[in-house]
This record gives sequence, C-alpha cells and structure tokens, in this order.
Amino acid sequence: MNELELLERLLPSLPLGRGVRVGAGDDCAVLDLGLTDRWFLFKTDAVVEGVHFERGTEGRRVGHKALGRVLSDIAAMGGRPLQALVTLGLPEGFDVGYVELIYAGMKGLAGKYGVGIPGGETTASGGGFFLSVAMIGEVHPARCILRSGARPGDAIFVTGRLGGSIEGKHLDFEPRLREAQWLVERFGIRAMIDVSDGLARDLRHILKASGVGAEILATAIPISVGARRKAREAAGWLETTTGGREYKPGLMAALTDGEDFELLFCVDKSVAVQLLDSWKGEFPEVPLGCIGKIIEGSELYLRDQRGVRPLGADGYDHFTQSK
Amino acid sequence: MNELELLERLLPSLPLGRGVRVGAGDDCAVLDLGLTDRWFLFKTDAVVEGVHFERGTEGRRVGHKALGRVLSDIAAMGGRPLQALVTLGLPEGFDVGYVELIYAGMKGLAGKYGVGIPGGETTASGGGFFLSVAMIGEVHPARCILRSGARPGDAIFVTGRLGGSIEGKHLDFEPRLREAQWLVERFGIRAMIDVSDGLARDLRHILKASGVGAEILATAIPISVGARRKAREAAGWLETTTGGREYKPGLMAALTDGEDFELLFCVDKSVAVQLLDSWKGEFPEVPLGCIGKIIEGSELYLRDQRGVRPLGADGYDHFTQSK
Repeated sequence: MNELELLERLLPSLPLGRGVRVGAGDDCAVLDLGLTDRWFLFKTDAVVEGVHFERGTEGRRVGHKALGRVLSDIAAMGGRPLQALVTLGLPEGFDVGYVELIYAGMKGLAGKYGVGIPGGETTASGGGFFLSVAMIGEVHPARCILRSGARPGDAIFVTGRLGGSIEGKHLDFEPRLREAQWLVERFGIRAMIDVSDGLARDLRHILKASGVGAEILATAIPISVGARRKAREAAGWLETTTGGREYKPGLMAALTDGEDFELLFCVDKSVAVQLLDSWKGEFPEVPLGCIGKIIEGSELYLRDQRGVRPLGADGYDHFTQSK
Repeated sequence: MNELELLERLLPSLPLGRGVRVGAGDDCAVLDLGLTDRWFLFKTDAVVEGVHFERGTEGRRVGHKALGRVLSDIAAMGGRPLQALVTLGLPEGFDVGYVELIYAGMKGLAGKYGVGIPGGETTASGGGFFLSVAMIGEVHPARCILRSGARPGDAIFVTGRLGGSIEGKHLDFEPRLREAQWLVERFGIRAMIDVSDGLARDLRHILKASGVGAEILATAIPISVGARRKAREAAGWLETTTGGREYKPGLMAALTDGEDFELLFCVDKSVAVQLLDSWKGEFPEVPLGCIGKIIEGSELYLRDQRGVRPLGADGYDHFTQSK
C-alpha cells in the first residue's frame, strides 16, 4: 500500500470541520474563515533525513527544501504564503551549528517571499533529522486554482525542464510563487498542481480530480539537461549502475522523476498562444512549454513517432513494458 | 543546550511576517488576519516513538495524545480549535491497522471538540512512527490569554492533580478546552499556560513573560494519586529502581513531572473565591486549587513547614539540593 492508497483509505472518514472549501486531495486544504475576499490555505509537509535528503547535506539546502516544498504547494493553488511553523526533529548529539544553517536556509527563502516564521518547536527525533513545516497562505476565492477544473480541449503547460532533480534541483529549486501569481492574475487557469511526484503522476492527479483524460506529446516534454546527460551516459536504456542509481531515458526521467517542483497547469486553448508570448516577456529565464491537451475520458496517452499509446497508472512501469 | 535554549538562539532572528500579534514564546502563535472579532491561533507539535510514546503503545492512545497536545495549547490561549493537519512518519514495514487506530484516536478527539482534519500526509520516517500535528484555532482578541499578563498580587490556580503522568495520563489526558473557555468567558484571566514541562518550569514561563515572581505553597500543590503512591513505595526519597524509572517524592513529582496538560493560570485575587465556588458547580469532577500568588521580582519561592526558599531554575535540581 503506497502513501496515496493509505491516505485514500484514512482521510474520507475524518471530520472536515467548519468552513472547509477543499479538503484532502489538493495541494493545500482551503479554509473559508468568514472573509469575503480571502480564503486561507493550510498545508503541512515533512522532509526526513535518509528519505528526502542524505545525511551530511548542507544545512542551508535542507532548510531551503523543507520550506520550499510547502511554498510550491501554496503556489500551485494560486496563493500567497503568510506564516510557517516548523517542528524540527533532532538526532542525538546533533550539531547546533548545523541546525543554525537549516534555519538560515529557511530564513533566506522566507525573507524572499515575505513569509513569517513566528515560532517553532524541537523534539528528539529518535533517528535522524526531520523537519515538519506547517504553512498558512491566502488566496482570492476567484483565483483559487484546484486540480479539478480541467476541461476537454484545454492546453496543458509545464514550467521548467523535468527529470533528474536528484542531482541537486530537489534541494535548490525555486518555488514558482511569482510565476503562479502572475498566471492566476492574468489568465483563466483551469487547474494547477506542482510537479512533486513526477509529471505523469501529477498530471493524473489533475485528470482524476477533473474527470478527464489527456494526450501529451513526447517531443514537447521538456527534459532537463541533467536527465539528458544521464540518458546519454546510459545509452538511452534502463540500467542499474554499481552505485545503485537507476538511469532512465531522458523522456522517462522527465515523465516519472519526482521533486521538480515546477507548475503543471491547464488553460483554455484559446489563450494558449497569448500566454506563451506574455510569459516569455515576463519570465525569459523560465522555460514554459505546451505539452499536450485535455481530452474526454480518463486515460493519459503519450504521442510519439510510433503513434499514440496509453501510459500506465504510474507512468513508469507501463512505459518500460511498452518498449 | 536544551530545546528552550536552542529555540531562544534561533527564533529571534526569524522574520515574523505580517499580522503576527504574538510570535515565539507563548503556547501558540497569534495571527491577526484582518477580522475585527477574531484572531487566529497557529501551532505545530510532534510526538515521536521512543520519545513521547513507547513502541507498541495502542494506536488510539498515540493519536489521542498527538492531537490532544495541540488542543491543550489552544486551550491555554483561551481559544477554540478549528482545523488540524497531520503529517505521519511511517517506519518500514508498518502495520496499516495500527495506522488506522492512530487515526481513530485522533478522530475521536476531533469529533468531541468539533475539530476538522481536512487532509494529511504520510512520509517514510527513517526510524519509528512520528506524528506532527499543525492546528489553526480562533480566539476573540479580548479573550486571548498570553503568558505575559500576570501581576503582583494575582492568585495562581492549577487544575487537576499533578505528577506521575508517565503512568498513563500522558496518553489519555483530556485537553482542558471547555474549562479554559469557561474561564476566559467569565473571569479576567491574566495569564495562562498548559502544564506540559512540569508545574515549576511552566510557572517560570509565566513569570519570565510577565516580569514577576511567585510564591507557591507546598501543601496546596495538588499531587496525583499515582505520584503519591509512587512516593510511598519509594519511602519518600529519590531512588532509582531496577526499571530505570525515577521515583520522586510526591511533591517533587507534582512540581517537576511533565505532560499533565492541566491549566495553570493567574487571576486578580479579588475574584479568586468566586471563581473557586463557580468552578465547583460547573466542573465538579475536575479539581481546581489556588497554589500561591504572584509577587514582585523574578524568583519562584516555595513555602513549606520549614519556611520559604527559592526553587532553582528548573525546579528539580535545586529542590533536591535543598534537602
């Protein structure tokens, strides 16, 4: 049973409470606390040593990642971050200087986006370090973008280049807060998510929530330089090195690697060209590409030189099987 | 360096962000999000296997404790809980049924107090289980009770009986939400905190925040039945059993044991008698006792049959030294 299945089993039985506009199943919970012009976003997320970062990773990067992950979720709702609280799990004999660097990493990112950190707690962890970050953000009700708004005919866009984030981007990524704000203020974004589980999985989250399917174009998927290089090194085929790290073909890495923290979103196709043009003027250094379209049904199809074929539930296994 | 010292070093340098009425140093952060009649309370807290509960503890009790701890913090501010999000760290090979029991424990307590749990996340823990709970609550600005409002002459009260919570109460305690609400609506509570670190330490938090001292009366400290029994077993003196658990004199246990999650608060002495009388009618099964008074200065004194003497910084060491 994976995380998603476990949560799908546990969460529906939990009480929603008052004022919940959106509960489990989107990037953040959405709370209506009684203001007409604002809803509040609520999110928690943890990073764990040995799972989300290796022992010995520079403290600043650990702090940056921990806060950046929740900022990416706030961005994916069209929101602005307000306040964060951090619970820090400390291993026995931890180094205070390292903890200060973790906080420095959070502080740097918090300062950049006007996020407050008005408190925090520490606890013995019983193992390595962990950081659990809780965040409150705000969003205008008319600009709160869910996963569930995609419609057949919509164009699908993704920012950045995908795949191979394990080489470093998973620690150093920039949460796409400014880009998401710009998008929701200017264009009728129908659905949005951040790419944390891999493009194929995250697009499936949108498809499932929206009750639609999609067709994406292999040649349009933006593959990161690192994923391309790895693919060349591995001659384009799946291989396991002595280091135990899997090398994937670049396209497969872009489809299935996680933790790119880019924005994946859908808009009416009639504004797609205008959006691309405006984007290049506003964010010349951030790639944006149209990778496909929303269709009727519930399947996710990949179109390449050999035709159109369905991608499996997780993108990965079925893709390799189709080779 | 203990938790408090570490946080005192790290937190002052962090950005507060917009709308923060109270940052680090109280039971919850207090956020003013623009409503005239409500402030919001924001809190995170984690429980860790091997630290806050032992491996094999019933899942329901683990869930109850994890949520109950943050509810106790909301209570201590005079607030009402609204929404909670839970990050659950899972050990390798975890049992799904056990996780369901953890959620059942949270759900039971959430239902009782109208708390929503509109989402949650799981992660591999790298060790044993951990639960990090984030909570949003609300409080009327005029009834938001801080640690900093105690004044010389105030009467000091504590609910329940203290000490020995490790025998079970630390898992099964009832957060004093109803009692705290009742208190803040009817009496001018000057300062309040929940007893999580032990009476002596938590009273010191109030004294430090308020810039005052206190004198407490040994015979007025409510000692739990369990702590009294343990004290009898140990003949009233510090001893270490083969099990490695310290037995303390009952009074010392009541002063220094943690995790009782009772309310410790200060009120103007002129309302003390009326408060006690009303309390007995409203909460006949919850003990409430006046344990001393706030004084000028910054010291915490204990008065017993031998006179008045200062308690040390942590209550514990200096108390034993004074024997």
